[in-house]
Amino acid sequence: MDGEMSQTLVRTGPGTRMGNLMRRYWVPVLLASEIAAPDGPQVRVTILGEKLLAFRDSAGKVGLIDEFCAHRGASLYFGRNEEGGIRCAYHGLKFTRDGRCVEVPSAPQLCEFMAIKAYPCIERGGLVWAYMGPPDKQPSPPEVEWCGLPPSQVFVSKRLQECNYLQAMEGGIDTSHVSYVHRYEVDEDPFHQGTKANDYIRADGNVVFDIERTPFGLTLYGRRNGEPDSYYWRITQWLFPWFTLIPPFGDHALAGHVWVPIDDHNCWAWSINFHPAKPLSNSERAHLEAGKGIHCAYEPGTFRPRANKDNDYLMDRQAQREKRAYSGVFGFSMQDASLQESMGPIQNHAAEKLLPTDRAIVMARRMLYDAALGLEQGVEPPALDSSQQRVRAAGVLLERSVKPEVWAKTHVADGLHQPVYSV
Amino acid sequence: MDGEMSQTLVRTGPGTRMGNLMRRYWVPVLLASEIAAPDGPQVRVTILGEKLLAFRDSAGKVGLIDEFCAHRGASLYFGRNEEGGIRCAYHGLKFTRDGRCVEVPSAPQLCEFMAIKAYPCIERGGLVWAYMGPPDKQPSPPEVEWCGLPPSQVFVSKRLQECNYLQAMEGGIDTSHVSYVHRYEVDEDPFHQGTKANDYIRADGNVVFDIERTPFGLTLYGRRNGEPDSYYWRITQWLFPWFTLIPPFGDHALAGHVWVPIDDHNCWAWSINFHPAKPLSNSERAHLEAGKGIHCAYEPGTFRPRANKDNDYLMDRQAQREKRAYSGVFGFSMQDASLQESMGPIQNHAAEKLLPTDRAIVMARRMLYDAALGLEQGVEPPALDSSQQRVRAAGVLLERSVKPEVWAKTHVADGLHQPVYSV
Amino acid sequence: MDGEMSQTLVRTGPGTRMGNLMRRYWVPVLLASEIAAPDGPQVRVTILGEKLLAFRDSAGKVGLIDEFCAHRGASLYFGRNEEGGIRCAYHGLKFTRDGRCVEVPSAPQLCEFMAIKAYPCIERGGLVWAYMGPPDKQPSPPEVEWCGLPPSQVFVSKRLQECNYLQAMEGGIDTSHVSYVHRYEVDEDPFHQGTKANDYIRADGNVVFDIERTPFGLTLYGRRNGEPDSYYWRITQWLFPWFTLIPPFGDHALAGHVWVPIDDHNCWAWSINFHPAKPLSNSERAHLEAGKGIHCAYEPGTFRPRANKDNDYLMDRQAQREKRAYSGVFGFSMQDASLQESMGPIQNHAAEKLLPTDRAIVMARRMLYDAALGLEQGVEPPALDSSQQRVRAAGVLLERSVKPEVWAKTHVADGLHQPVYSV
Repeated sequence: MDGEMSQTLVRTGPGTRMGNLMRRYWVPVLLASEIAAPDGPQVRVTILGEKLLAFRDSAGKVGLIDEFCAHRGASLYFGRNEEGGIRCAYHGLKFTRDGRCVEVPSAPQLCEFMAIKAYPCIERGGLVWAYMGPPDKQPSPPEVEWCGLPPSQVFVSKRLQECNYLQAMEGGIDTSHVSYVHRYEVDEDPFHQGTKANDYIRADGNVVFDIERTPFGLTLYGRRNGEPDSYYWRITQWLFPWFTLIPPFGDHALAGHVWVPIDDHNCWAWSINFHPAKPLSNSERAHLEAGKGIHCAYEPGTFRPRANKDNDYLMDRQAQREKRAYSGVFGFSMQDASLQESMGPIQNHAAEKLLPTDRAIVMARRMLYDAALGLEQGVEPPALDSSQQRVRAAGVLLERSVKPEVWAKTHVADGLHQPVYSV
Repeated sequence: MDGEMSQTLVRTGPGTRMGNLMRRYWVPVLLASEIAAPDGPQVRVTILGEKLLAFRDSAGKVGLIDEFCAHRGASLYFGRNEEGGIRCAYHGLKFTRDGRCVEVPSAPQLCEFMAIKAYPCIERGGLVWAYMGPPDKQPSPPEVEWCGLPPSQVFVSKRLQECNYLQAMEGGIDTSHVSYVHRYEVDEDPFHQGTKANDYIRADGNVVFDIERTPFGLTLYGRRNGEPDSYYWRITQWLFPWFTLIPPFGDHALAGHVWVPIDDHNCWAWSINFHPAKPLSNSERAHLEAGKGIHCAYEPGTFRPRANKDNDYLMDRQAQREKRAYSGVFGFSMQDASLQESMGPIQNHAAEKLLPTDRAIVMARRMLYDAALGLEQGVEPPALDSSQQRVRAAGVLLERSVKPEVWAKTHVADGLHQPVYSV
Repeated sequence: MDGEMSQTLVRTGPGTRMGNLMRRYWVPVLLASEIAAPDGPQVRVTILGEKLLAFRDSAGKVGLIDEFCAHRGASLYFGRNEEGGIRCAYHGLKFTRDGRCVEVPSAPQLCEFMAIKAYPCIERGGLVWAYMGPPDKQPSPPEVEWCGLPPSQVFVSKRLQECNYLQAMEGGIDTSHVSYVHRYEVDEDPFHQGTKANDYIRADGNVVFDIERTPFGLTLYGRRNGEPDSYYWRITQWLFPWFTLIPPFGDHALAGHVWVPIDDHNCWAWSINFHPAKPLSNSERAHLEAGKGIHCAYEPGTFRPRANKDNDYLMDRQAQREKRAYSGVFGFSMQDASLQESMGPIQNHAAEKLLPTDRAIVMARRMLYDAALGLEQGVEPPALDSSQQRVRAAGVLLERSVKPEVWAKTHVADGLHQPVYSV
């Protein structure tokens, strides 16, 4: 990938091409539970290079405003969240969740000049989402499947990943790495038990992909040998501009991610498990809350993984030797993160040599790039119609003669969300 | 404030406009007690962007010299302070407190070529002060009131503040913030007890300022409602280029600060309590030594506050909710520092929106800027005559018809330093 | 030293003049013991600004390859070292120690395009050495004396020094500092006992140097007063481009260093004790393994000294006062490192004022500079013939009329390595 395209894709701050594109979609900002109580503690959050403050006001509505007071630039993190807004601790200016300044104690007549940046927010799937683009362009709320399910059927976590969002998201698009770094992880994971899918994946390291370009992004059909007369297909999706969807194993929960830039050197890796038809069991939920599966354990008081680059991700060479951890790192998320962060804060795209299995990555990059350049030319971005997000990942064993694209049209096509648990 | 003016004010290294201006005054460098003993350990100190070494020589005289040996640039911090100078540990070159090189063991004839930078120092008020400007321009020693009092009547501390000196000092000039971030602090502070001043401040958040431009800087007259027939006036001073003076509460000690650039991203916040007429009591001194009042507790072995940006200033949201700490941060100094540091290492002046209560700040900036530009044109800076520093802050309850400027002329005017304890 | 010469000498990354010169010699990379076992854990190592990975393959051969996979740039540190190479954990690409890619699971036909950087390695004296220059220019293996001795007669350690290699190496060339920073260290060191050499060094701080330019670098003849009718000569060598050799005291072991750039702000200080004629005793070896003498103790799990710039090298002012440690820092290595690191990551050569005792440094700089510029013009560098490294340092008491250069010709001249223990 040339330098111009690389720079376009990885830079997402205000006024950048990619930043402008991403601001046309609803952006996951933080867990709703981080600002659970009305008038509770406000939380600092950096998204797309902007330093913001999230809070829940007296009426229980979420606000996402500039972190800094309009007056002297002091952080509103030190302010008081009470009676319908945040009051700056320095000189008492007060701001509502829509950024209006409603009190300037020393000069009430100047309120109207002291408004600050504010972004509209909604809550879906346990997350707060913000719209950071032009007001007249706000799209309908997200409809990825896990946003619409009862809380009992969903588990969401986020973790800090210390690299650019692009190389992180590409790990989510590229499922061919599952046979390597995650190889031994699946043996222990309850969400992978009671199904032969693991065996198929282990036995056939050379997944072959059909890739379909769709209105919402990409659908990948990954083929591995199944039984003598069948193929095991894993059908995954990448949804504009940052969602990935992961098929279940057997009747276990499905999974998904969202890859959201914090700044150009860090991103939030959101990880979701969800079951469309039934609640997560207590033991499953306990497993996920312990940071297992695609989630992780944290450094106390933070969303930074306990296994991180400062401690070499708690690599265990003994476990690597004994084939308990392929790279010596444990946990799906940290196996990915360790490799992706090792590429540097921003991968040197000039040095990479892509392979045929990277075709989906190449296509996603091109679609993002074209959309970013198109927007600059006045072309509306793709997938603003949230109903296009109503797709689902699937794993299925099909007779060798059956085309998965055909099967998918009636099983995982747009608008269906219907359960498909073949393997 | 435009970018040119902002850059002029915040940059204080060698050769900068503001740096040149500040070097025309005596500069507080370190506590005299940090280098208490003749031939005791030398101390590294960075001031106005210069890396220096302070020490007390065999005769008890203070030296402030370049930290680095003229020969190879090794730090003299590792040198031996004995027999009238510092000897470099690397090759034995020896330097006196006036920067002369008096020994080059391998080449005595080269001593005269090996002199290093040295600044004249004096001791006043428990501090070492240096003069870092042109030798022929050295002003008379500082005469701020606390410099001339017996040690029993003064308590001085310093703390590292991790931002530019300007935004720190502006918090000292701007007393309008007292009604907000410090609101609940005064309830607990012994220096605020036994007086109705706190009640006046709490009851009337909208202080109105008369500001007088003086030969030495600014005098601020802050008016709040007092009794039905009186106003409560707080008279504070800003003295060129970095002193601020704070009125007492009742017959308690007065207070003051000095705001001295370490480099452009850090400053020393000097804090002084002093009583013009009587010693601090044992309990008062114990209180101050414990880091209470305008002082602070430190990280062990340093002058960095224990409450700092790495631990969010030990913010206590519970205490904030319960109105024990307005911003959740405890302590006058850390309440200010938390807000001022939150503006960034250097405040983004382009984004600020000043209010009428900021008039004193605007005036001080302008005076500093004009003085810096004037100096460049050959105009001597203001307030080089130290006797102009003989002013005092005061708090006084005056009949509503009395003009505080008139009252002050006979009570806190230049050269008087006479006690005024009205409230 | 002017800026152009300084920049030429201190920059050693790929494509720099000095980097090109150094790449013409065998480069010490890591301890052979760090990658002791075939198929054992690989080790990250940065040398001359290049991020590399060292490992021992199934056949016991050492590989030194690019740290990052050719495909997406993931670190091979997380890969699996087994069956003749390192397999990337991300997508299973496999690389042999010569950088060939022997497996691309998803696209075997592309192996030939996926080769990575690899450098030939040899093992000598307990170290792994790499040749990082043009393949057709590889010199014969190093022949510094300690490379050829049985392991029982050699002790090697390395430590991280957090500054440019040049200022570190110059401390090794410049032996005139021994009378200062190391003055009290020798009293305690067993390798300095039972000889009058210490007394000579202590008594005569003004060493006088004869310096001889040789085909391999420099020989320094340092003269101090010995007995009334004799001089005590210490004969040291600097060998192109980074070796220094230190004379013994009495019949104790000799010493040497290698100063190898990690990057422009860090270097490896290799320290070697060796005896040409007999094994190190158990107590001597225990002493060295404890980090005494010219070695050091480490921060756990690293080669960073426990005494480092973050803790002011554990400086003990009490010990300094009591003349147990000249600078307050203990240990030969940390005494040097503390001073050299205090000069900054790269010494400001524009500010230094060199003395007559720095003549050897000036000559070494000039020789390195001339060689670097010469190479650019097609002139082959000096001392590529490793047999020129067959020299030895010596300490000897000679009648005042004897020229040490003459004596040395038959005792420490090229190709001899014969024992000389006069004092």
